[in-house]
Amino acid sequence: MKVTLLSDIFLKKKNINTVILINGWVRNRRDSKSGISFLDIYDGSIVTTLQVIAKNTLSNYVTEILKLTIGCSVKIVGKLIHSLHKKNIYELKAHLIQVIGTVSSPKSYPMSAKRHTLEHLRNFCHLRPRTNIIGVISRIRNTVFYTLHKFFQSKQYLWVATPIITSINTEGGGDMFKISMLDTSNYELNKKIKNFKKKFFNRSAFLTVSGQLTLEAYACSLSKVYSFGPVFRAENSNTKKHLAEFWMLEMEKAFTTVKKISNFSEILLKHVIQKVLEKNSLDLSFLKKYIDNNIFIRLKKILNINFFHIEYKEALDILLKNSHLFSEKIFWGIDFNTIQEKYLVEEYFKAPVVIYNYPKNIKPFYMKLNSDEITVSAFDILFPLVGEIIGGSEREDRFSILENRMKIFKETQKDYHWYQDLRKYGTIPHAGFGLGFERLILYITGLNNIRDVIPFPRSVGDLKF
Amino acid sequence: MKVTLLSDIFLKKKNINTVILINGWVRNRRDSKSGISFLDIYDGSIVTTLQVIAKNTLSNYVTEILKLTIGCSVKIVGKLIHSLHKKNIYELKAHLIQVIGTVSSPKSYPMSAKRHTLEHLRNFCHLRPRTNIIGVISRIRNTVFYTLHKFFQSKQYLWVATPIITSINTEGGGDMFKISMLDTSNYELNKKIKNFKKKFFNRSAFLTVSGQLTLEAYACSLSKVYSFGPVFRAENSNTKKHLAEFWMLEMEKAFTTVKKISNFSEILLKHVIQKVLEKNSLDLSFLKKYIDNNIFIRLKKILNINFFHIEYKEALDILLKNSHLFSEKIFWGIDFNTIQEKYLVEEYFKAPVVIYNYPKNIKPFYMKLNSDEITVSAFDILFPLVGEIIGGSEREDRFSILENRMKIFKETQKDYHWYQDLRKYGTIPHAGFGLGFERLILYITGLNNIRDVIPFPRSVGDLKF
Repeated sequence: MKVTLLSDIFLKKKNINTVILINGWVRNRRDSKSGISFLDIYDGSIVTTLQVIAKNTLSNYVTEILKLTIGCSVKIVGKLIHSLHKKNIYELKAHLIQVIGTVSSPKSYPMSAKRHTLEHLRNFCHLRPRTNIIGVISRIRNTVFYTLHKFFQSKQYLWVATPIITSINTEGGGDMFKISMLDTSNYELNKKIKNFKKKFFNRSAFLTVSGQLTLEAYACSLSKVYSFGPVFRAENSNTKKHLAEFWMLEMEKAFTTVKKISNFSEILLKHVIQKVLEKNSLDLSFLKKYIDNNIFIRLKKILNINFFHIEYKEALDILLKNSHLFSEKIFWGIDFNTIQEKYLVEEYFKAPVVIYNYPKNIKPFYMKLNSDEITVSAFDILFPLVGEIIGGSEREDRFSILENRMKIFKETQKDYHWYQDLRKYGTIPHAGFGLGFERLILYITGLNNIRDVIPFPRSVGDLKF
Repeated sequence: MKVTLLSDIFLKKKNINTVILINGWVRNRRDSKSGISFLDIYDGSIVTTLQVIAKNTLSNYVTEILKLTIGCSVKIVGKLIHSLHKKNIYELKAHLIQVIGTVSSPKSYPMSAKRHTLEHLRNFCHLRPRTNIIGVISRIRNTVFYTLHKFFQSKQYLWVATPIITSINTEGGGDMFKISMLDTSNYELNKKIKNFKKKFFNRSAFLTVSGQLTLEAYACSLSKVYSFGPVFRAENSNTKKHLAEFWMLEMEKAFTTVKKISNFSEILLKHVIQKVLEKNSLDLSFLKKYIDNNIFIRLKKILNINFFHIEYKEALDILLKNSHLFSEKIFWGIDFNTIQEKYLVEEYFKAPVVIYNYPKNIKPFYMKLNSDEITVSAFDILFPLVGEIIGGSEREDRFSILENRMKIFKETQKDYHWYQDLRKYGTIPHAGFGLGFERLILYITGLNNIRDVIPFPRSVGDLKF
């Protein structure tokens, strides 16, 4: 007998008035005095539970069904019918309930019926997907992830796997994790480790902070490419917006300009939010109830407004005019901090803001120098609640200017000869951006802590599992 | 003016007999005595080049066009017409050719017109995507990658990001990369590094070899899940089939059996190959010409046969009957080596083989013990040319047996309490498999060395970029 998912029932309205098999976990059990029990069953395919009606005529009613507690796993065969109670829509009249797995000590089950705080749930990353909230987030993550892939595929971008292990010591490597065969738990032992073990790659190796530079090599030959994978930051910052490991989508396009790809990224963000509204309306309704009462209005607003497109200089002028609001000094050349960005997006524009043409000194060496020679052709998209969600730029495609910029940034020719080659042989104007996946999920869901929107969060001092 | 990709022209037959803009790189230039030059242009969207006809009436004909060499980048506006030469199908009569990037010293350009060996190309991973062969592989990788996602999404699997940085010291951690803030290039310096820096996570951290265990946590709550990302092996093996970093698709399904998911994986593999035959026929034709004359027959054969499904014991019997062919002793309990697997697949069955029920001692602790108590409910799918392409199993869902097996394998309770929790609270039968993405690409393309089917290969002693 084929398994029916609860999403097939509630979203596709499949198999109504037929006998079906469902698998799942018990969320709740209520017993009536008339010898009927009501079980709420959950299978993770949808936020909704299905009410199962179990009569005392079932052979295991007393021995097993009356003992079912939250978290027990069951297989149920029964007839799916329209419910008389509007709240439930459908219900399943059980012919057979097979108990698969029990919860031996219900009181010690960390996902008990009681509502838990997100903070509490973080201690049980292996069990928290059993809660509604993490189920909701998982399904929204899936929609966003797949929508991003579909969007790029439909526009003929090729997916490229950029490497995780890298020798590219971007920005001095201070914020990069090192990879080796050295064991931090037994420091003295390392001295005895053979040379092979110590230096697997015969050179220093790091966890990548971005696949961009290698992705550029593919843009400079296959024209339209993107990557989507984990990236890493070894920053000692324990904020609600930072993770040591997170997913990033990066795109790189040949023969294009920063203006074109920033417009493209605005379309992309709106498209993703539109798809979540279409595909995850029940999940969003759950979030409306428990997390953000304003969620539908907030997301739909994004679809219906144009993002504000401003120059760094304009943003700076706005901040200068309101400098009394900020404790830090504001002048040309600063990198806007969180509070300043928050002011621009949430107070001043009350909408996402795209900021262009940042001072060259606060951006990496690879960004294209503008003709004013003091700014680079970069853009950041700042969102309410979460701040920077996308950062991109045109890449410096002129060999001599790149060489010069690298000297200023003390990037050694030795490590980047290959990157310079891309400018030596048939160079092209090209641009790209990176989209922080978890930041986007954080914005969409309205949650407050990035640790709650990734299955197994990693941050300084915190590595469970 | 909108850019037309060469794939739009050759595959979608767009814009014929209209004036179009193309961007790309010069592959070849031939000049006729009558003042016409023929340029072959490539943009990476398809293996085919477009012939451009440049007349000496173009203003930059002498100054620029006659100097174009392989690798130069150009923007061309012209009229797209049917070619009189059958070989070309279409050609572009140029109205305007703008040279974007030149190749300053064509003789030193590593991707010169001459055919290079794959081994030579490996030294130029940043430029090799400009070659036909790496372009072909990149497009096939993209098809396979996206087809895998589409397949799982269409069957309502949720994508889950399993973590890269892990504390799970699977199989003793000997083959795992360690992550730290320790610097292998300056060993003495490490002694001075502050404690935070030394132990970012306050415990030993590794690069994951598989996301399976964490994916199980999600299967045990969301029913149908998959992950697809990079995994790592710090093995000192420098073979043509091994990489230190590669991509793996892993799926995990609740309430299922090993037989069901092995059948599912057979359908999956055939579906992927079918899609490559549909979407990459030009790429496969290129491979037929230069790599494997038999490629279409080989791939279509996979679609039309049933994989052989055998028990480990049966495989062993076959090898025993032919033990004179093998130098190593064959007996119950061995893990088949490459030569033995090759014999089974390529000599004996001449088809992919699915082997079930391996001896428990050669498989990991998490595989479900069969009722015979000497085998586990595992399966491996062995393919011609590449060997194991998929490995999967039913997972041990019985708490006490798992606990027992862990003791035998010396897995400490401390590290795996969370994994045991999945069996303690509403346990379910579940199974899953891992698919080595690059192995599959290797098989499909018919290439010989796995370093050629991943953009930036990493192996022992080899970390460029």
